[in-house]
Amino acid sequence: MLEISKNSELSASSVTPPTIVALKQPTSQAWVKMAIANLDTILLDHSHCERKAAGVALNLMFRYPSNTQLVRMLTAIAREELEHFEQVNQWLERRHIPLGHLSAPPYGAGMKAQIRPQEPQRLLDSLLVSGLIEARSHERLGLLANHSPDPDLAKFYRSLMASEARHYGVYWVLANTYFERDVVKERLEELAVAESELLETLHPEPRIHS
Amino acid sequence: MLEISKNSELSASSVTPPTIVALKQPTSQAWVKMAIANLDTILLDHSHCERKAAGVALNLMFRYPSNTQLVRMLTAIAREELEHFEQVNQWLERRHIPLGHLSAPPYGAGMKAQIRPQEPQRLLDSLLVSGLIEARSHERLGLLANHSPDPDLAKFYRSLMASEARHYGVYWVLANTYFERDVVKERLEELAVAESELLETLHPEPRIHS
Ligand SMILES: [Fe+2]
Ligand SMILES: [Fe+2]
Ligand SMILES: [Fe+2]
Ligand SMILES: [Fe+2]
Repeated sequence: MLEISKNSELSASSVTPPTIVALKQPTSQAWVKMAIANLDTILLDHSHCERKAAGVALNLMFRYPSNTQLVRMLTAIAREELEHFEQVNQWLERRHIPLGHLSAPPYGAGMKAQIRPQEPQRLLDSLLVSGLIEARSHERLGLLANHSPDPDLAKFYRSLMASEARHYGVYWVLANTYFERDVVKERLEELAVAESELLETLHPEPRIHS
Repeated sequence: MLEISKNSELSASSVTPPTIVALKQPTSQAWVKMAIANLDTILLDHSHCERKAAGVALNLMFRYPSNTQLVRMLTAIAREELEHFEQVNQWLERRHIPLGHLSAPPYGAGMKAQIRPQEPQRLLDSLLVSGLIEARSHERLGLLANHSPDPDLAKFYRSLMASEARHYGVYWVLANTYFERDVVKERLEELAVAESELLETLHPEPRIHS
């Protein structure tokens, strides 16, 4: 298992397994095209994603209050996601995009449906599903960074990419803290296949995870 | 209405109405005695309170995603509560108190039961109930600061007191942002009576809000 910093700051060097390896299929050009043509909607959806990411971390802490390592590492993630949420909202303000509700694409519910209801599988699946969503966010923020016509916005996306890769790493490390390495690896494979299948058909609305 | 800082940092000077005025009854000496005799349990319960406070702020943002002022101010509160959560957990570690589940006292559910289910009353009540819980936390952390036998712990409680008073102020300002001042005042009176009644009988387990 990897060495984990005891510090509340997530240490980048210690917890970064190769992200791209986890994802079974790269994002399609069709998604990139739709996202770049609808950057305002993508920014608003991104705001919701960051808030939801903080919520997921908080809920896991609530469900597993005795798992010290989990609580410690997810507190740091929740704090970072709220910081991202605030930063994305500043971008919304700058571009005069009002805050508001946005329908969620089927991806989130589809990933959640993969989580087996019985413990300890529920914990393992919750960690790996969160990890895969982080890995996909990392990939897609990278694509937005590469294709955004606004250089400042591109820079912003690039600044978030590293955090999301680190978050993937944290979830992966936590999975390996509470489960056997082979069990983690096998289940990650299965969930990664499901994740890529969920994205095979492009959702008609532009979203981060459409 | 009070002037509110647009900054994400909550500005102490601008949003602090008198806290003690909101509470109808001061905390009993019996609570102080029980809390000081069970400081480890109080610290563990306090950890849960801080995480729950972050969760409540996050849930309100989720429910009212278009209320820009609310989203902005509650993001700052959620971030601060997670910082407090981390700080309380560091105290638990220092005192070798393991993290873990703790049964909740009836106070939280009792306060939640006061929230009327229909909008817009639901929003008003949610803000004022959160505000009153913050006001009570402020009062009780002050009592812990005054009576703690450990001077470092007393200093820690004192450092959190000001934030909780500020949080009360933020909820109060938000209520006044979305509702008429007289309506807010009248409902705050009613809820404050209910809050004090909930604490009239001391809960047999030592808790922050027992
Ligand atoms: Fe993020
Ligand atoms: Fe993340
Ligand atoms: Fe707090
Ligand atoms: Fe607070």
